[in-house]
Amino acid sequence: MERLPGFRDFYPEPVPSRDAGWSFDARQFIFGKWREAARRYGFREYDGPPLEPLELFTTKSGAEIVGQLYNFVDKGERAVALRPEMTPTLARMVAAHERAYKKPIKWFALPQLFRYERQQKGRLREHFQFNADILGENDVAADAELIALLIDTLRSFGLTAEDFVIRLSSRNAWQEFYERGVRNAECGAEGAYQFYQIIDKLERTPPEESQKKLAALGFSLEDVNGFIASGTPTAELASIIANLAARGLGDFVKVDYHVIRGLAYYTGPVFEAFDRKGEFRAIAGGGRYDNLVKLISGGKVNLSALGFGMGDVVLLELLSARGLLPQFDATVDVFVLIEDEAVRPQSLKLIQDLRATGHVVDYPLTPAKPDKQFKRAQELKAGFTARVEGAATVKIRNLKTREEVVMAAADAPGHIAR
Amino acid sequence: MERLPGFRDFYPEPVPSRDAGWSFDARQFIFGKWREAARRYGFREYDGPPLEPLELFTTKSGAEIVGQLYNFVDKGERAVALRPEMTPTLARMVAAHERAYKKPIKWFALPQLFRYERQQKGRLREHFQFNADILGENDVAADAELIALLIDTLRSFGLTAEDFVIRLSSRNAWQEFYERGVRNAECGAEGAYQFYQIIDKLERTPPEESQKKLAALGFSLEDVNGFIASGTPTAELASIIANLAARGLGDFVKVDYHVIRGLAYYTGPVFEAFDRKGEFRAIAGGGRYDNLVKLISGGKVNLSALGFGMGDVVLLELLSARGLLPQFDATVDVFVLIEDEAVRPQSLKLIQDLRATGHVVDYPLTPAKPDKQFKRAQELKAGFTARVEGAATVKIRNLKTREEVVMAAADAPGHIAR
Repeated sequence: MERLPGFRDFYPEPVPSRDAGWSFDARQFIFGKWREAARRYGFREYDGPPLEPLELFTTKSGAEIVGQLYNFVDKGERAVALRPEMTPTLARMVAAHERAYKKPIKWFALPQLFRYERQQKGRLREHFQFNADILGENDVAADAELIALLIDTLRSFGLTAEDFVIRLSSRNAWQEFYERGVRNAECGAEGAYQFYQIIDKLERTPPEESQKKLAALGFSLEDVNGFIASGTPTAELASIIANLAARGLGDFVKVDYHVIRGLAYYTGPVFEAFDRKGEFRAIAGGGRYDNLVKLISGGKVNLSALGFGMGDVVLLELLSARGLLPQFDATVDVFVLIEDEAVRPQSLKLIQDLRATGHVVDYPLTPAKPDKQFKRAQELKAGFTARVEGAATVKIRNLKTREEVVMAAADAPGHIAR
Repeated sequence: MERLPGFRDFYPEPVPSRDAGWSFDARQFIFGKWREAARRYGFREYDGPPLEPLELFTTKSGAEIVGQLYNFVDKGERAVALRPEMTPTLARMVAAHERAYKKPIKWFALPQLFRYERQQKGRLREHFQFNADILGENDVAADAELIALLIDTLRSFGLTAEDFVIRLSSRNAWQEFYERGVRNAECGAEGAYQFYQIIDKLERTPPEESQKKLAALGFSLEDVNGFIASGTPTAELASIIANLAARGLGDFVKVDYHVIRGLAYYTGPVFEAFDRKGEFRAIAGGGRYDNLVKLISGGKVNLSALGFGMGDVVLLELLSARGLLPQFDATVDVFVLIEDEAVRPQSLKLIQDLRATGHVVDYPLTPAKPDKQFKRAQELKAGFTARVEGAATVKIRNLKTREEVVMAAADAPGHIAR
């Protein structure tokens, strides 16, 4: 029986092969760095259900999204879907209890997200994402704080300003550009959305095609390219850049109006993190979405908001390519050798005492030859072996220094440094 | 918009109310203890997809289970289900790559599991479970090792032998009892399964009803109760108890043949953890299932196996009732006061430097009155406040000792103890 296509098994290291699955240890390493960075910035962790009412996602993204969802009708006749993103859940949770929390709310989550997409080879249908959001602060100081967190998260993996850059843009600036230039005011919101989609795909679309589509809305590709080339920061972007520069993070960010973020719901500054060599898809992306909480709460709660998402898959590829993933080994602190079955009971007591003081301990569950036991201790990269000798004495061997000491069994846990 | 009934939102502390949701911090506290105990015992963590082919679960549990599942047909016409338990996924994963791992395999996982059950008030449709399993070891020394992990996991929360007990039983013993006494050999496996179900429900069923059902299979309630009352350990159980006693864990376990574990797939020793006062449902349960890997792998791989599962919900109730849940607070190491906007840039640099050395730091994103800032520092239970004074000096105040020191900004991160 096989797992579903596009889903991952996470094996303990050593992972048999890349086909076999992914490394649980690498996943945990990444989660640890994500949590640690968020913690230093004073963000608090939350989570919601992986299964939500379908309406939560269509309210935000329109009915089109259903084609990309794992959605179904449950046994209670509810239309439900596996979450394709975390933001609607966050908006729902905050709206339900916004009075209970001081503003600004700084929260993060590490959800697993699901999208059903027509199968492409190697394309995943689930991934994990680091989501960090700030709610209840209009000032772009919040945008700077959030981008600083994004930068420091990537730096905590050993990535530098030579490895990645945050491309900073402004949905506002593009909106003004659109409103200044649109030929026909009747195009309205729908026209703006079409326009954003064209800009979003500009770098991946033949110029003639973009030109044609822009012309239909009353724009010229030349004007668009001119605006992008100018790179003049808006007052908001200038303020964000100055804030980041004061922190010593100026090298990690640049204005780049190619970035617009396709989704309809962004309202202010937007940004994406890219590897400088341009080998990978975006590492992370986000921006302001000041209207979403109001939309999800049916107008009951109005809270400005901004956030970013960083997936585990591109990040893993990048860290792997830059040699920044550590070696993950199964290791133990102490391997207890039981060469004489007569002392198994005393050995079990020793194992218990060592574990009770926090040591990671393994041992042969059943009788095994001494050389086989020692080989196993080496495979597990044990720091020490311990062997009960006589009624209440233990011989401890430091496998690095080869130093051997005999001591009372009761002293062994204290002797072995954590 | 509301979350689905039976699903939980996990909020950062302080959680607005129990109705609002559950505590993410309490969940993380429990996950941390689970991981730490497993680690000390040399168990390695794995995970699989929350969505699996439906067949994986029906192969193990029969078609009846479908009524309790979140199952559906995906857009690729595959019959799929949200996992109701982890063991089939584990068996699938191990069977696929068993040669890559040394035996015994000691693995654990903390999956979220899903069951659709007709709504009862307050009844959850998802929970998290600590699953620990040992594969590839026939000897009951593995059963003892696993039960020791279960005991030490519960002890790590502060629970003692006065709080809980492991009721140890034997599917083998019941199987022999059944085979000795069954009137009609034709009853076979189906009869045995019916018999196990009767025993499983014995404590919750009126005696006349059990008597009647047992009689249909050729048994008397008296004989059954006599066997249970005898409590004579089988050789296997005696060996497990001796092993645990050698570790000093004898007080945590007793033979109790009431326990049989309803599921059809158990093959050897079985056990459940209960609170001594009998206020809660089982805290954990498990046992041997030596045939499952063979079944799931279609006969390709044959590996003995045993494991237990411990859910987060009963555990949380028990810890809460015994006063063993710590207070979870939003706390920061340092709150940086910015009372003069002219020094905001230097303050941002200080914040960056403090965070870079691992400190948890918060500060006012926008101009705020000094007393409001200080109040926020107190709410966040800050250990220190720091305030830039002049070009490159910082005043640091220890909020516990009220000691104030002025120093060069560059020295501040080193001064503040982690």
